[in-house]
Amino acid sequence: MYLAKLYVSHKPSILDPQGEAIKKALHSLNHQSVESISQGKYFEINLNENNQEDAENVLKKACEELLVNQNMETYHYEIKEV
Amino acid sequence: MYLAKLYVSHKPSILDPQGEAIKKALHSLNHQSVESISQGKYFEINLNENNQEDAENVLKKACEELLVNQNMETYHYEIKEV
Repeated sequence: MYLAKLYVSHKPSILDPQGEAIKKALHSLNHQSVESISQGKYFEINLNENNQEDAENVLKKACEELLVNQNMETYHYEIKEV
Repeated sequence: MYLAKLYVSHKPSILDPQGEAIKKALHSLNHQSVESISQGKYFEINLNENNQEDAENVLKKACEELLVNQNMETYHYEIKEV
């Protein structure tokens, strides 16, 4: 069994209105030192595979086919046997 | 300047219908080896503070006051000077 931790965030070139809205909210709570904030998605995925390579292949396909919008988002991941 | 990476996920005891829905979708795409999946939030926050301790304090307050639903979610973070 492998545990993958997947981090999906906006591409830098993409406007992040959600991040801007959160920043304004934090400033209104007197956290002026918040310079910038971006929100993305965080997945924890258990993969029932026999080796790391197969687990990574499934993860990459899952990203391409469902979990990541390739036009607007980038992703990175960590994967380990559990 | 400090960069905080914040990972917010459901508490284990909390039902995660979104994770179940994503798992079903991945199974329908023939990724049967996906055993479980949970989706959370991932933030990258730039904090204009003078030392790590102050940056962590701002981050913890931001979590308590806005970014994390303490009833349903847990969080962990990494913070480094940039």
